[in-house]
Amino acid sequence: MSRLLWGMIGGGEGSQIGPAHRISAGMDGHFQLAAGALDIDPERGKSFAAQLGVSPDRAYGNWQEMLEGEKSRSDRLDLVTIATPNATHYEISRAFLEAGFNVLCEKPLTMTAEEAEHIVEITRQSGKICAVNYGYSGYPLVRQMRAMVAAGELGNIRLIKAEFAHGFHADAEEADNPRVRWRYDPAQAGTSAVFADAGIHAFHMACFVAGQVPAELSADFASLVGDRQLEDDAMINIRLDGGTLCRLWTSAIAVGRMHGLTLQVFGEKGGLSWEQQHPEQLYWTPLNGRTQVLERGDATLSEQATRASRIAIGHAEGMPVAFANIYHDLAEVLKAEKAGVAPSHLALDYPTAVDGLHSMKAIEAAAKSAKARGAWVAI
Amino acid sequence: MSRLLWGMIGGGEGSQIGPAHRISAGMDGHFQLAAGALDIDPERGKSFAAQLGVSPDRAYGNWQEMLEGEKSRSDRLDLVTIATPNATHYEISRAFLEAGFNVLCEKPLTMTAEEAEHIVEITRQSGKICAVNYGYSGYPLVRQMRAMVAAGELGNIRLIKAEFAHGFHADAEEADNPRVRWRYDPAQAGTSAVFADAGIHAFHMACFVAGQVPAELSADFASLVGDRQLEDDAMINIRLDGGTLCRLWTSAIAVGRMHGLTLQVFGEKGGLSWEQQHPEQLYWTPLNGRTQVLERGDATLSEQATRASRIAIGHAEGMPVAFANIYHDLAEVLKAEKAGVAPSHLALDYPTAVDGLHSMKAIEAAAKSAKARGAWVAI
Amino acid sequence: MSRLLWGMIGGGEGSQIGPAHRISAGMDGHFQLAAGALDIDPERGKSFAAQLGVSPDRAYGNWQEMLEGEKSRSDRLDLVTIATPNATHYEISRAFLEAGFNVLCEKPLTMTAEEAEHIVEITRQSGKICAVNYGYSGYPLVRQMRAMVAAGELGNIRLIKAEFAHGFHADAEEADNPRVRWRYDPAQAGTSAVFADAGIHAFHMACFVAGQVPAELSADFASLVGDRQLEDDAMINIRLDGGTLCRLWTSAIAVGRMHGLTLQVFGEKGGLSWEQQHPEQLYWTPLNGRTQVLERGDATLSEQATRASRIAIGHAEGMPVAFANIYHDLAEVLKAEKAGVAPSHLALDYPTAVDGLHSMKAIEAAAKSAKARGAWVAI
Amino acid sequence: MSRLLWGMIGGGEGSQIGPAHRISAGMDGHFQLAAGALDIDPERGKSFAAQLGVSPDRAYGNWQEMLEGEKSRSDRLDLVTIATPNATHYEISRAFLEAGFNVLCEKPLTMTAEEAEHIVEITRQSGKICAVNYGYSGYPLVRQMRAMVAAGELGNIRLIKAEFAHGFHADAEEADNPRVRWRYDPAQAGTSAVFADAGIHAFHMACFVAGQVPAELSADFASLVGDRQLEDDAMINIRLDGGTLCRLWTSAIAVGRMHGLTLQVFGEKGGLSWEQQHPEQLYWTPLNGRTQVLERGDATLSEQATRASRIAIGHAEGMPVAFANIYHDLAEVLKAEKAGVAPSHLALDYPTAVDGLHSMKAIEAAAKSAKARGAWVAI
Repeated sequence: MSRLLWGMIGGGEGSQIGPAHRISAGMDGHFQLAAGALDIDPERGKSFAAQLGVSPDRAYGNWQEMLEGEKSRSDRLDLVTIATPNATHYEISRAFLEAGFNVLCEKPLTMTAEEAEHIVEITRQSGKICAVNYGYSGYPLVRQMRAMVAAGELGNIRLIKAEFAHGFHADAEEADNPRVRWRYDPAQAGTSAVFADAGIHAFHMACFVAGQVPAELSADFASLVGDRQLEDDAMINIRLDGGTLCRLWTSAIAVGRMHGLTLQVFGEKGGLSWEQQHPEQLYWTPLNGRTQVLERGDATLSEQATRASRIAIGHAEGMPVAFANIYHDLAEVLKAEKAGVAPSHLALDYPTAVDGLHSMKAIEAAAKSAKARGAWVAI
Repeated sequence: MSRLLWGMIGGGEGSQIGPAHRISAGMDGHFQLAAGALDIDPERGKSFAAQLGVSPDRAYGNWQEMLEGEKSRSDRLDLVTIATPNATHYEISRAFLEAGFNVLCEKPLTMTAEEAEHIVEITRQSGKICAVNYGYSGYPLVRQMRAMVAAGELGNIRLIKAEFAHGFHADAEEADNPRVRWRYDPAQAGTSAVFADAGIHAFHMACFVAGQVPAELSADFASLVGDRQLEDDAMINIRLDGGTLCRLWTSAIAVGRMHGLTLQVFGEKGGLSWEQQHPEQLYWTPLNGRTQVLERGDATLSEQATRASRIAIGHAEGMPVAFANIYHDLAEVLKAEKAGVAPSHLALDYPTAVDGLHSMKAIEAAAKSAKARGAWVAI
Repeated sequence: MSRLLWGMIGGGEGSQIGPAHRISAGMDGHFQLAAGALDIDPERGKSFAAQLGVSPDRAYGNWQEMLEGEKSRSDRLDLVTIATPNATHYEISRAFLEAGFNVLCEKPLTMTAEEAEHIVEITRQSGKICAVNYGYSGYPLVRQMRAMVAAGELGNIRLIKAEFAHGFHADAEEADNPRVRWRYDPAQAGTSAVFADAGIHAFHMACFVAGQVPAELSADFASLVGDRQLEDDAMINIRLDGGTLCRLWTSAIAVGRMHGLTLQVFGEKGGLSWEQQHPEQLYWTPLNGRTQVLERGDATLSEQATRASRIAIGHAEGMPVAFANIYHDLAEVLKAEKAGVAPSHLALDYPTAVDGLHSMKAIEAAAKSAKARGAWVAI
Repeated sequence: MSRLLWGMIGGGEGSQIGPAHRISAGMDGHFQLAAGALDIDPERGKSFAAQLGVSPDRAYGNWQEMLEGEKSRSDRLDLVTIATPNATHYEISRAFLEAGFNVLCEKPLTMTAEEAEHIVEITRQSGKICAVNYGYSGYPLVRQMRAMVAAGELGNIRLIKAEFAHGFHADAEEADNPRVRWRYDPAQAGTSAVFADAGIHAFHMACFVAGQVPAELSADFASLVGDRQLEDDAMINIRLDGGTLCRLWTSAIAVGRMHGLTLQVFGEKGGLSWEQQHPEQLYWTPLNGRTQVLERGDATLSEQATRASRIAIGHAEGMPVAFANIYHDLAEVLKAEKAGVAPSHLALDYPTAVDGLHSMKAIEAAAKSAKARGAWVAI
């Protein structure tokens, strides 16, 4: 089957997330970049698109032009990735979904839960895909955790301990640097900074692995550098709907932590431990047994984890491969649709607008709880 | 100078903590075990004391006999260690302190904050020592952290992340085992289980390293196994009096964690990370700099850390050496007193009844906060 | 500039190395797969090529057809990757080089040093590129090591300790499995098994980091499973031409080692330590100083390491990115040539036929030394 | 039973090894320091002995006086530890053994194999104990490795990979410092420096775990700093008498390595990996299975490992506990002898003069092989 046609909005030259998407979408040969509005500067965007092999008539100056130009083409885009600044995600996603495109939106899906509800509603009515890039859920061993939990290997899940802590906003001298400052300004960033930006990945991962949705939470927010209005450190206790308690710490002032995304899952029958900085090993301790090291690529892993692996055991596959698994899922679903068949259930684990909605609700609830000195708030 | 005379109550044959005290007290040759009431069974206690080299007239059947026999001797005990069941600590410590002995009490010092207040009051009046065995504070690199913080190397301390999590009470089948059950029974264990038992070490260590005392806290307690009345997992946010925020997780159901006592300290100028399972390395990241590995025994460490090291760099010194440093401090203080001189300030870092009091207050505040669904409670 | 045209021989469906090449070549958008003879089965190869987007007229049944079809085209291939069985590398590389193509050959370049000499000679005369895929040299932190050594940060390099040990051929029950057996059969594998297959990567990396070429060696080969004729474990001492001593262990029977490719470099002024299983950290200990952790992506790294990084600090970039750096180098060189300018010196670190030649000489010398019970043999 | 009487020669104030012996001998309360000739300076030695609780009549100025004073006492010493400079070990051990004392000698037992043969001969005739302090063999998990090998859990042992590498003699500026220089001076240190000093521990451990004795070896010695006459780095291949191949690297110039004593054991049925810097974990990978983490103190360990543990699981026991296990073995044997019963077989794993002899033979063979450019030499 020929390659799927892929469009991209944002992610231009110098963007951090753009290359990750292009590497990931291209990795398995499923997608061909066919159209793009890649930059806030129209000319730069067009020229960069050309450099990436997009034909001139599909290299656009902005997303509105792209929508206009693409919506009536017969060689229609199979998927549009949105990697623009956060505040524009809702408007662009909505426009493309309403025009009948499938969308992969960078997180956050929207700036409010209400907007996210709207997106979910649109996708429910149209049947179109709106995926959200909680890309770390694509790691093979994260999928292994989910598969083990789903298979009952841990029994009832009592507790999840999740962390996403880094130290890149710890320098008080840098607090006024515009690159950092906007993140802690409610006018630009909304009701939450580090939880909405970093911790939300750990939140999604906890729900994803537990196979549950959040029910209520209690949050403590702290602003520890200068006069920041939004939190740069937060501790959140979350009760999931299946009864699992989740304790989540997120921080931007944890000097010495690089990308401290970790997950520990404790069930009746055993415990799991995984960290993003060494994503190739998962530690599994059966109750009253010895800790075992599950290596990515090991033949005994679940079919979900095996499907998500590309490289031989013992090599670091890396983060781009995790993102690529989201694209791989979408490709399978899109190709199945074209072929008029049902996609494999294995391809259905990608995060959707519903996940985006849960995240926005959790962020709003956490901000509310934090203001109420940790009162429990329903999600 | 000859060896100090040492007495021991509890810690008989088969006790877990007894050997640790004997190894630690004996390590530097400061103390000679001269008297003991080692066992709830008088005969077993006397026979075990003899085996340990105690002369028959100082091997007692219980602590009351020991107090009676020892209080008027001219070759008076320099220090009495109390390693009996928790509920007896207060009564025995009080009796020996009132009789003019110096005491090293296993934690918890008492069962209530009120009792701990009383002990503090007694020691204030008598001038006698009442140390409490928060033994992990004796690790050389824990003292290094304290020294670095005190010297201002981290600047103002913004956040401390502390953990003490294990998985030894995770087995629901074992929940009714008497060896486990009493810990979660309020009648026997008081108002808190895992925080009072395990988490309190992390709490003490955070205060010790920060050089601050606790001001207020908010706690979430969870009972995750069977119908336990007390918590087997807790998350506590603590504000210290110097402004540092402390986030503390403790658990007894974390399958796969052996002895997960860890401390991360984040200041204006850098971050520190240490874990008890690998106590010989401390990770120090100066703001905007590279992480450095501080090895125990390294010549560049603080005088506090150097004084607390006995073995060449690169070897594991181990936990008994940490406890031994508490004994070493006490020996220096006691010997200085005998010699009529002031002890080195380096010997004054051992935990005292005041630490025991702070701990009891924190436990009571945490239990109260947990009942009030996480309301902040002053300590 | 438009994409370079890329051809591939071997690496068909189910091949282990094929996807790694396609992921890596595609990662930066430099190369477009334009032609291929991908499979020993002509029809499967053509159909797989079509699936990968190759146009039918450039999907070939074998390499001879491909050479015939491609050599006179005006839209000539910029680079041909050879990923066929080892024994065919020489013949195919030679044919394409002689027809004026640039080649990236999987290692080993040839089966004998004599053949490798021939390839080197051809490239000297034609000026065409013959790169050899010692792909681990593309890791950013391996390039950091090379840059630090070249800059004199370690002073004179005294010793390199290199390892490549795995346990995938340890099962005696599997020794007769054809998938394993051929590797230890001199008729198919030549004079060396595990050194030629795995250890040679560590060998190349040592030379690459030291910036030296091998002078002499002494080898001990062992066949530890069943009646294997070739070695499954080897220890080799190598003297490099700049005086550095290199100690290299390689094994295929080291059960529990996944992909144990490690390098430790000890110089007058400090030591470095790196391991492929955790490629994102490099440990640097200045003489008499503290060990520092160099994170991939850290702003203080060399320009060589920085150029080779694509993903933000704290994420695992993974092995495909290492290979991609080889392709990236080649793309820069090829594009510079097209533009009639000199390529950046930073692009010239990819391994070439000269490295392939040194490897073949080392393999032959090691086999000779091993037969002579460890006698030193000039390379 | 009362405590055993213990004498010590050497290990005075400021000595590195002295405290380790006293901590270890005292740890379990088996031994009471009853006599000593602790220092080359008679007065300092006597005064330090008094400080350690030795009665004045048993505090001697030198070992000859001690031998004279002790040999006819009725309260005879049960064990004499020799911790003097290496060159004196033979003379002192011999004298005390011939006078009917049991001896624990620091390694090396002697300076030549011939001397070691003599000591072995004396112990054979007298039946007295001559233990040699290869103290790392006392680690519980080292004993676990030995027990697993002896029980056949790994099947036939194919290969042992052993290392003892540090960087403490890497500074060329320090090479002439007398504290370092003597170690590389043949007149003072004999035929080998780093192998005899450090590597020999790894050698002993390999033999101990394999349950085999050395048969032949091939060595490469290198002097990498200044004009040292003896080796500061060595690679040795050893064939044990049971067919196991052992590859051993030892170095004193490995900057960044603290105390790199590691052992990997590869058998037909699985592999083991252990390192002294983290002695509480042993990694066990059954063939075709997942790696398991064996924690020291785990209830499933062998009786040998369990007997050698004192502290609860999850704590670092440390190196002094390893040495203490040697003393514990000796105490059991000595007490059994006094009681006229056979000691437990579990107490018989301490290293003896025969191990000391194998070590001296290996050192001489390695020096000979290294001079012959790696020729294999029988041991």
